[in-house]
Amino acid sequence: MPENSTTDAVRMPDESSLSRRVVVSPGMCSGGSLVFGRIGDWTWEAVAAACRTNVHAARTADGQPAYLSFYYYRVRGGKTIHPHGLTFGDELRVSSRVFQFGSQSVLTLHRLAPADLGLADTPLDPAEVYDDPHPDCMYAENFNRWIARSRPDSNRSLARTSPPDFAFADLPRLPNQYSPRTLVGRAREAEGFCAPAPPGFAVAGPEHTFEYTLDVTRDINGAGLVYFASYFSIFDTALLRLWRSFGRTDEQFLRRRVIDQKVGYFGNADPGAVFTITVRNWRNATRPETEIADMALRDATTGRLLAVTAIEIEAGKAPSA
Amino acid sequence: MPENSTTDAVRMPDESSLSRRVVVSPGMCSGGSLVFGRIGDWTWEAVAAACRTNVHAARTADGQPAYLSFYYYRVRGGKTIHPHGLTFGDELRVSSRVFQFGSQSVLTLHRLAPADLGLADTPLDPAEVYDDPHPDCMYAENFNRWIARSRPDSNRSLARTSPPDFAFADLPRLPNQYSPRTLVGRAREAEGFCAPAPPGFAVAGPEHTFEYTLDVTRDINGAGLVYFASYFSIFDTALLRLWRSFGRTDEQFLRRRVIDQKVGYFGNADPGAVFTITVRNWRNATRPETEIADMALRDATTGRLLAVTAIEIEAGKAPSA
Repeated sequence: MPENSTTDAVRMPDESSLSRRVVVSPGMCSGGSLVFGRIGDWTWEAVAAACRTNVHAARTADGQPAYLSFYYYRVRGGKTIHPHGLTFGDELRVSSRVFQFGSQSVLTLHRLAPADLGLADTPLDPAEVYDDPHPDCMYAENFNRWIARSRPDSNRSLARTSPPDFAFADLPRLPNQYSPRTLVGRAREAEGFCAPAPPGFAVAGPEHTFEYTLDVTRDINGAGLVYFASYFSIFDTALLRLWRSFGRTDEQFLRRRVIDQKVGYFGNADPGAVFTITVRNWRNATRPETEIADMALRDATTGRLLAVTAIEIEAGKAPSA
Repeated sequence: MPENSTTDAVRMPDESSLSRRVVVSPGMCSGGSLVFGRIGDWTWEAVAAACRTNVHAARTADGQPAYLSFYYYRVRGGKTIHPHGLTFGDELRVSSRVFQFGSQSVLTLHRLAPADLGLADTPLDPAEVYDDPHPDCMYAENFNRWIARSRPDSNRSLARTSPPDFAFADLPRLPNQYSPRTLVGRAREAEGFCAPAPPGFAVAGPEHTFEYTLDVTRDINGAGLVYFASYFSIFDTALLRLWRSFGRTDEQFLRRRVIDQKVGYFGNADPGAVFTITVRNWRNATRPETEIADMALRDATTGRLLAVTAIEIEAGKAPSA
């Protein structure tokens, strides 16, 4: 290993877990979606190791490309580590663990801890992640489903599948009370994560609608699908427009602190697609600096629901003039 | 090491070189700039290892943050590996080597070879990179300079600096004939890489000008500067608009094959900035499918030159209807 290397060898504390030291580089932090993309890469890598499956070049039984798509992505920011608060040189200890979630899905948990916290390098305990998170750490939860294109030339019709060598039987089970299945199913049905209303929050102001044209220079991944991390950027584009309508500055936007973000992915799109994004802003009654942006992304032509998100944010104070 | 791991331990074939096996993941390939960002991360990592400097959290002698900024970035695509042609699961052997370039700069070369080519894992020879590139491989050349902000609240005034522990004296020297200094200086002076005209090419059609508003949801890196990889996306945004003006489709754009791209970075910008991008299109007389997009990026308010690029592309045939 070179001295000062940022890519430590990855350890496996058990058959379902990966652990790595990370020095944050420009390609994994920003006001944008790079950190979500990097965590997604760690999910694929953890699933590849734990399920002994070639996740990166997976095939269906028919030999068609199969993708371990992101169906639900949740991230919770901590006091020290939060999604848009990382900068070059931050040293992290990243713990990842893969859980079985049926024959066509898998669930991966990650903890991004400040390296100097000195947390034990043991397999991640779901009780910590869901019930007793360390206040300094950031946590991510990825619920992935295997999909394949039903028609080779379209992203609009994706079918569930599973590569024949996907070995999930030996993975640990996630205790039932933590399963996000009900939450995600309800969000899909209700077209948002805020039904019922989040406790302590009330809608502040009217619903806004923004249009977004799929950006083929940024949003298409190496397999020709809309990249899961781009959905974060697309929702952030709508959030920025909302904040500008409140008179907030770009600097305030860049300083936003994401406490909790959930994304449900229900559809993909082809180049040329135009989306409408509806946004409702919720405000906490007792902590008015805490807001939730509750958004739904739809195909502008068909109205088909493609994704929903809820972003709980500490908006921060406006700088004194 | 876990079985199927995508992050192989990095080897150092000599004091100035890194070598790694890479399985291409979603976070490092696309029609966009992810691959350029990832190569940039490898540059920082190679410099950190070869110069025994904490590149990721570097400081000036005064204790201010110092950044190993990208001043010139060149990439050449090969027949097998080219920037927008990578997909999930592609297996690469990446060789990187760092060369001394004065007390405030450094030059890093990378070769991305298909893993099954079986090239020897030896330090990269500049003669191969510049004079005799392997036709299947992609090569990148990064010329980085140490900078620091002159004023803490602005990206518009960046001064050259060097962290006191930057150890470059033991690095190999790049043979003089390969130095990009003259090329980059001339491009800055001429506000483009196409003066004099590239041999065999002639300007095809009028100059176009596009406006671009800095996108704070995508373009700002973890240190609050405009991200070097975003310049690729900003130029690609202008290229896409140019191609649409020719009646070309998004699908043709996504299939573009970059043979050679040079970017010179001459300035940064603050949130709220608006750019104008001028584009000239050059066509090869004997290979009309080969074009060069010759662009300059300027601050729309001041006219200050921020960056230039030349992208040599095989545009590909339009699909038969």
